[in-house]
Amino acid sequence: MDLVASVLLAEGLGSLTIDRVARESGVSRTTIYKLWPSLGSLLLDGYFHAVEEELAFPDTGDIRADLTAQLRSFVRLMTTTPAGRVILELIGRSQSDPELVVEFRRRYSSHRRRLAVRRMEEAQAAGQLRADLELESIVDQLWGAAYYRMLMPDQPIDQAFAETLVGNLFRGIGAER
Amino acid sequence: MDLVASVLLAEGLGSLTIDRVARESGVSRTTIYKLWPSLGSLLLDGYFHAVEEELAFPDTGDIRADLTAQLRSFVRLMTTTPAGRVILELIGRSQSDPELVVEFRRRYSSHRRRLAVRRMEEAQAAGQLRADLELESIVDQLWGAAYYRMLMPDQPIDQAFAETLVGNLFRGIGAER
Repeated sequence: MDLVASVLLAEGLGSLTIDRVARESGVSRTTIYKLWPSLGSLLLDGYFHAVEEELAFPDTGDIRADLTAQLRSFVRLMTTTPAGRVILELIGRSQSDPELVVEFRRRYSSHRRRLAVRRMEEAQAAGQLRADLELESIVDQLWGAAYYRMLMPDQPIDQAFAETLVGNLFRGIGAER
Repeated sequence: MDLVASVLLAEGLGSLTIDRVARESGVSRTTIYKLWPSLGSLLLDGYFHAVEEELAFPDTGDIRADLTAQLRSFVRLMTTTPAGRVILELIGRSQSDPELVVEFRRRYSSHRRRLAVRRMEEAQAAGQLRADLELESIVDQLWGAAYYRMLMPDQPIDQAFAETLVGNLFRGIGAER
């Protein structure tokens, strides 16, 4: 996985093939295909491990600060390394490839979601987030909103955007009465 | 456009070709290619007109109710007509087709964004939304969040989700002190 991860982060999607992974890792093609049924599943597994450390959730005891810091790291990863294009292209391909959707969820997005929800559950338990929130919906309104802006780039995405997304949810958008 | 719109809503993306549009509309292929440089641009233009009425923003004077009603219509359109798959596949294809991204923004998403921002500007002027909001970011946290859940279907999407998204933003997610 380290090989796949480092190539993905440094060079992006285009340069990875099963042949190259077999050659550079010394693992046979047969074994690789046993572990990962398709190149897509290998890429997603590699990607998950490549970004796991950078996207770890801090826990300073302040959930607003921690979500902001993590979302800033996510935006930086997506916009300043080839990793961003990798994941956007895999999301793109999966729209007409039902098997890739399954792999995507199984090897990447369901794990990322669970990590985010777990951090927010801790914050709920600590009395920092409303107890009645549907935490899955917050995942969509933070990381989902950022993905959307990258997938349909009508507007630029930057670190300030990460702050704005968190701020909208904490401050509320209605005018104060 | 009416022909393209009705086929898209009834049958989805797969059954539309430039040849079919030419044959059924009586417009020559040459003329069609002059107006729409690619099948993608024709589809996006047709899609915009197909959904324009259903996705119109109500104005009852209550922005929270109006956003909820429109977002419910959007979810219904995306989940109960073939139109949803059309737009998700076009977003998917555009991830590896820079020209399609440009067409997507020019023929569809920039217009939809502008309509949403305009309705929210009216609500700001009426004192119903905070004056200091970056309204573009709210587009990402409502429609973008819904798109994300459809593009990466880890969680189901339904009408209740539309209510939840709007509720999170109006109530705020922080625990009350």
